[in-house]
Amino acid sequence: MNKATNLPITGVYCAATTPVDANGKVRLDLFAEHCKLLLQEGAHGIALLGTTGEANNYSGAERRALLEAAIESGVNGNQLLPGTSACSVPETVELTRHAVENGARACVLLPPFYYKGVSDEGIYRFYANVINQVNDARLKVILYHIPQVTQISLSHDLIRRLIKEFPNTIIGIKDSAGDIKHMESLVNTFDNFSVFAGADPLLKPILEAGGAGCITATSNLRSDALRTVFDNWSDPNAKDIVENAQEHINAWRELTNSYVQLPTVKAMVAHSRGNLDWLNARPPLVSLTEAECKIIWKKMDELSA
Amino acid sequence: MNKATNLPITGVYCAATTPVDANGKVRLDLFAEHCKLLLQEGAHGIALLGTTGEANNYSGAERRALLEAAIESGVNGNQLLPGTSACSVPETVELTRHAVENGARACVLLPPFYYKGVSDEGIYRFYANVINQVNDARLKVILYHIPQVTQISLSHDLIRRLIKEFPNTIIGIKDSAGDIKHMESLVNTFDNFSVFAGADPLLKPILEAGGAGCITATSNLRSDALRTVFDNWSDPNAKDIVENAQEHINAWRELTNSYVQLPTVKAMVAHSRGNLDWLNARPPLVSLTEAECKIIWKKMDELSA
Repeated sequence: MNKATNLPITGVYCAATTPVDANGKVRLDLFAEHCKLLLQEGAHGIALLGTTGEANNYSGAERRALLEAAIESGVNGNQLLPGTSACSVPETVELTRHAVENGARACVLLPPFYYKGVSDEGIYRFYANVINQVNDARLKVILYHIPQVTQISLSHDLIRRLIKEFPNTIIGIKDSAGDIKHMESLVNTFDNFSVFAGADPLLKPILEAGGAGCITATSNLRSDALRTVFDNWSDPNAKDIVENAQEHINAWRELTNSYVQLPTVKAMVAHSRGNLDWLNARPPLVSLTEAECKIIWKKMDELSA
Repeated sequence: MNKATNLPITGVYCAATTPVDANGKVRLDLFAEHCKLLLQEGAHGIALLGTTGEANNYSGAERRALLEAAIESGVNGNQLLPGTSACSVPETVELTRHAVENGARACVLLPPFYYKGVSDEGIYRFYANVINQVNDARLKVILYHIPQVTQISLSHDLIRRLIKEFPNTIIGIKDSAGDIKHMESLVNTFDNFSVFAGADPLLKPILEAGGAGCITATSNLRSDALRTVFDNWSDPNAKDIVENAQEHINAWRELTNSYVQLPTVKAMVAHSRGNLDWLNARPPLVSLTEAECKIIWKKMDELSA
């Protein structure tokens, strides 16, 4: 029932959002501070530069600087799961190698996402090229399945082939498709493979199914509650505590969907961290209006009361 | 009827494919040679690093090197329409500025394509940020509408706003959606705005509708026939010549769709240029098999006979 103890990696990881100032310049200091606070609040680590982290809105140089800023501020490399994919193999190799050399626990790798309708063979070659060119035994890869954004699906056949070819490298998957049945199928098909839910409401369900934990957006706000679920879900005496925590998470998650999710998460972090620079987003994302912020912030205050 | 004479830019532009060797290394020499031959064969210019050119499979450094290789081989900058978009504003600015500084006639700019369901406001900000940050009066932009790949549509409202804000910069659009009605609507809505068909069979129709010409894949193989259509479409005495040329183009275009289009175009260029390095593609694209090549090459020989 509980496979979790045997998994390569488990925990609550925050898909940290990335702050920029009003001119769009990355706020490295604010980002590093956020990472440290998230760890204090209960996150096991930071999955920086994912979809919530707007990875693809930043240059390679900015992405490397963000990872370095987190580490320089005192976050341990083994607490970091950076997203290091770009559309091209050489840029993905460069970002991935940099993350490995900085001690990242694992890299979360999107498939290339420009071309649609590509074959499993083509996606396989992308991952195989990246792993072979990084050529470092320290590299651990968490695949990133988010077909509603990439329009590229990571099939069971593809995952099986990657695990077979790179058994010491491919350690898990972030499944952001939002379908618990798909996650359960991954858990049941692949041994010694960490399946992370990409949606906060699925933390308890994925743990019950033998999954590894979560990599989610709402952890920018409620890492504490997510950690409560993670630490107590299997304790029969903590049933109420776990259910209350999961319900609390779900309410916060629902709030992040009030408007376009990413700028809404940023507006919420602006309120919880007390710094309006968190409001800013890079194009093609657009910050919430002042009126929208007021509505969200009021609801946050009500949820916190 | 014929608006073409008043348009900012017109012609037959080749969406040149990009050669790599068996190890995936860019063949700059082969690319430059191909560009020069395309101009001899009839193309007015080269729209390098588009979808057919696999732009997003290459790093920024590789993309800059390809542009420089074409210029160093003797192609004039004003014959080049490079694709210079990346998902992020800073990388797009870097590539676009480089192209402008190398004298490119115009840059073909995809919208950012990672996030889906983004607002016109967000896409507008992407383009506006890029144009303002490049901050060079020499910059001319051709918008790139290819929603079946990007999943992002460039609406008339967005185009209107961009033209209004940047009247000396936004000079046209490459419409690769394949719908002549949409292209006609663009021609009829926007004055002094060059509408290029992204599909070879639509060259004659778009010219008849008052469009600017084409930026297409089949021109890697049949720039001569495309040029015949472009030069003669409005001459009542050349009706048969034009129709035969367009039918010939259509037959070649149909052949490029025998398998996945981009690797098929590469296999066909390998045959027409007599160099098997053209077969190679970067992941997630996969080269045609030997058996597939034999079938395609036989059909090419038949079409050429």
